[in-house]
Amino acid sequence: MLNSLSVPFKKILSSKSWNPFITFMILFNTLILGMETYPGLMKDYGNILTFIDQAILIFFIVELLIRFIAHGGNFLKDPWSLFDLFVVTISLFPAQDAFSALRAARALRALRLISVFPKLRKVIEGLVMAIPGICAIAGVMAVIMCVFGLIASKLYGPYYPEWFGNLHLSIFSLFQIMTLEGWPDIVRTVMTQKPFAWVFFVTYILIATFSVLNLFIAVVVDAMQRNHQDEPDIHHAQQAHIQKQLDAILYAVTKK
Amino acid sequence: MLNSLSVPFKKILSSKSWNPFITFMILFNTLILGMETYPGLMKDYGNILTFIDQAILIFFIVELLIRFIAHGGNFLKDPWSLFDLFVVTISLFPAQDAFSALRAARALRALRLISVFPKLRKVIEGLVMAIPGICAIAGVMAVIMCVFGLIASKLYGPYYPEWFGNLHLSIFSLFQIMTLEGWPDIVRTVMTQKPFAWVFFVTYILIATFSVLNLFIAVVVDAMQRNHQDEPDIHHAQQAHIQKQLDAILYAVTKK
Amino acid sequence: MLNSLSVPFKKILSSKSWNPFITFMILFNTLILGMETYPGLMKDYGNILTFIDQAILIFFIVELLIRFIAHGGNFLKDPWSLFDLFVVTISLFPAQDAFSALRAARALRALRLISVFPKLRKVIEGLVMAIPGICAIAGVMAVIMCVFGLIASKLYGPYYPEWFGNLHLSIFSLFQIMTLEGWPDIVRTVMTQKPFAWVFFVTYILIATFSVLNLFIAVVVDAMQRNHQDEPDIHHAQQAHIQKQLDAILYAVTKK
Amino acid sequence: MLNSLSVPFKKILSSKSWNPFITFMILFNTLILGMETYPGLMKDYGNILTFIDQAILIFFIVELLIRFIAHGGNFLKDPWSLFDLFVVTISLFPAQDAFSALRAARALRALRLISVFPKLRKVIEGLVMAIPGICAIAGVMAVIMCVFGLIASKLYGPYYPEWFGNLHLSIFSLFQIMTLEGWPDIVRTVMTQKPFAWVFFVTYILIATFSVLNLFIAVVVDAMQRNHQDEPDIHHAQQAHIQKQLDAILYAVTKK
Repeated sequence: MLNSLSVPFKKILSSKSWNPFITFMILFNTLILGMETYPGLMKDYGNILTFIDQAILIFFIVELLIRFIAHGGNFLKDPWSLFDLFVVTISLFPAQDAFSALRAARALRALRLISVFPKLRKVIEGLVMAIPGICAIAGVMAVIMCVFGLIASKLYGPYYPEWFGNLHLSIFSLFQIMTLEGWPDIVRTVMTQKPFAWVFFVTYILIATFSVLNLFIAVVVDAMQRNHQDEPDIHHAQQAHIQKQLDAILYAVTKK
Repeated sequence: MLNSLSVPFKKILSSKSWNPFITFMILFNTLILGMETYPGLMKDYGNILTFIDQAILIFFIVELLIRFIAHGGNFLKDPWSLFDLFVVTISLFPAQDAFSALRAARALRALRLISVFPKLRKVIEGLVMAIPGICAIAGVMAVIMCVFGLIASKLYGPYYPEWFGNLHLSIFSLFQIMTLEGWPDIVRTVMTQKPFAWVFFVTYILIATFSVLNLFIAVVVDAMQRNHQDEPDIHHAQQAHIQKQLDAILYAVTKK
Repeated sequence: MLNSLSVPFKKILSSKSWNPFITFMILFNTLILGMETYPGLMKDYGNILTFIDQAILIFFIVELLIRFIAHGGNFLKDPWSLFDLFVVTISLFPAQDAFSALRAARALRALRLISVFPKLRKVIEGLVMAIPGICAIAGVMAVIMCVFGLIASKLYGPYYPEWFGNLHLSIFSLFQIMTLEGWPDIVRTVMTQKPFAWVFFVTYILIATFSVLNLFIAVVVDAMQRNHQDEPDIHHAQQAHIQKQLDAILYAVTKK
Repeated sequence: MLNSLSVPFKKILSSKSWNPFITFMILFNTLILGMETYPGLMKDYGNILTFIDQAILIFFIVELLIRFIAHGGNFLKDPWSLFDLFVVTISLFPAQDAFSALRAARALRALRLISVFPKLRKVIEGLVMAIPGICAIAGVMAVIMCVFGLIASKLYGPYYPEWFGNLHLSIFSLFQIMTLEGWPDIVRTVMTQKPFAWVFFVTYILIATFSVLNLFIAVVVDAMQRNHQDEPDIHHAQQAHIQKQLDAILYAVTKK
């Protein structure tokens, strides 16, 4: 029975007005979600906004069903379809007070704006493709932060428990220092008790920023290479052609 | 009648001393505008400064008229002429107190310093040419900020209304955090009420800075490509020449 | 006698389960070191944690001995083995209160996570290889900071001794300003006494950030070159082949 | 008479121990200058330090005289010699209290550390060579800051005179905002009076950081090009050789 629906549903999906309509619905949903963040609007029109939000959610479920029936198993193979499925499913969880985080997760539906525009999809795909190239450096940075965090906890933990009281507080503070945000406040304060703390922190800043710089370069070089990959092919084709002609000439010249 | 003026006006525009004179007038205008910002000077010489400013404005209108008559329709096709026209026109609006913003817009006339120097024009043209390449990433970043803004409003809005009270406040705070400016102050404060807020904000910082990094790379790669575009042409010309000679040799060798 | 152990020890080291086992031990050690930073855990389980830590330390010493016996003199030639040796040895120093820094240095053992994963090793080797290329710029920056530090000490030292009281305080403040962190606070404060201080500090900021930018570029260009080094080889091989064929043709054509 | 000294002086300058000796003297001078910044040391050994400083200054003058006599007119053509001359001359000015800035300028002598090491000289030459490539962008940024400064003075000057009271205060504040340092403090404060100030400041931040990014790219692309300049030469030489051989073959083949 579902198969018999596949053809008409495919027709709907490939109709010219379908994509703009979906885009409009996502934008409209984002607008509603945005309006829900204004306490004044919520007090006056809260019921209407919630109702529209629910209606759009149902619409999205129907849309996903149509796509699932139309494409069948292929639907589950396309990562962007799974992304849409995940983003819609998360809104179905009971939104009690105890799960305010889940309730807030409904906002993820606005991410469908990315999956609807092919250009934005490409950007995300580019970002994801850049991740493997930085895993190793990210790993090194994690180890470095961990080691410095352990040392900071032992050296400065007893004096400044709110910054370096235990490993996770230390790592948070070191992450803050890595972004260079407010590091002089922390270091100058620590130096009032431990005058040589600057050795530790300046070393950390130099290592951390140098690592970030190299993470940066890894991404740049990676992007450049992906970019240059096409060019050599033309070059190789030309070279191969020259090679072939030279072989022909050499054969013609020597056979005589 | 206007056409009969076209020739003498073109002569004026192409005279050697015209461009330096205009440059001087714009610099002089900028100086006057600058002097108007000093309350002490305004109190003593306010009338004179305003009078000179008005006189220069009239001069600029006359200059634009001369250029319009000299070049006719082409004047409206050149984007830099339209830029000059826009910048001068904006000063003609009534500058009442209710429109202090429009009054301040008179300062835009100093932007003509860019349109007068060809080198500075090129920089602006380069900046404008770099924009299409980053539109997609900018779009993704807008969606990401919007989604995180919605979530932040729901999770932290009730506790910190001055930072996350509604969507536009949240987006402003997230923009601030994206510039890494003062993020520890916000996050440490939020963590006093919501201990796991760091998960949200560190995730956001990593995604946001990684996106900025990729926006950055998009511009670099784009600039590199525009730069390398000329080189291949020489290379191709050489290859084509080699190809032609090989063909000639092959023909000469095999025809015998 | 030691030599007779070399063969069985080599067998152990090359067994499939050895590396994962060592990795697990280092991770476990890092976990223990991490737990030691939580005062609550230390109060309740301090003795057990310290005991496990000591046991793992002994295990690491045994492991190093096995590797030393297995590889003999080659052990001391491999920089990563020396790194492991250094990191373990530092934990053997008496950890009295007077040497709390040495005690904290035990955390360096977590750095073995880097030496255990070949990919992370490569990152560190890449970072180390990037250092020679930036030595010269780092030297210039050191001289610049020194000169500006001397000037700042003389000009602003008497007024703001906590920032510019002597050379090393000045250099620390200038390092802070180089990271752009909190520079307006310092400069605006200094300007209350020395209105023209902005000339000094803005000059310094422009020179310092421009130097950092060039340090950055030195690393990028260096990385690019190391990356492109392989390509020309293929190209050269092709060119050499073309050359050889041309020689053969020329010989065949002219000898007749 | 001076000419008769030229030969022996040249001998001195080219002797093996001369350069290390000068380097030592500059380092020693820097050390003395550094010691002079410590009030404690100055109180106890001020006279000795000042005396040594004067002695080294005389030594530097003698050294410059020797170089001048040895090289004659060429001395004044070498920019690094002029640099040394300038740096030493500035110390000769009377160092009264009224000219404390000139007195502090004696610290510039430490800059000779750069002119003594060829590698550091190269870095400075590289930095100077990078300047022409960024002049145009720097000019555009100056105009943009000027225009935004004029507007900020008019819009926010009356409310926040300490930040935007006149043009130069505004430009200083905008420079601060361009470094992103403390911008939320300023903008959030201004927004209490002018709720739409964020439009102005966020626009400025986007334009300013985008300009800095492009200034950055201009330097990177410039550095890359200078780097790649050598490669094409080899390539061209190869191509020319291939060309020549092809011509010879074509001639040999067709003349028959």
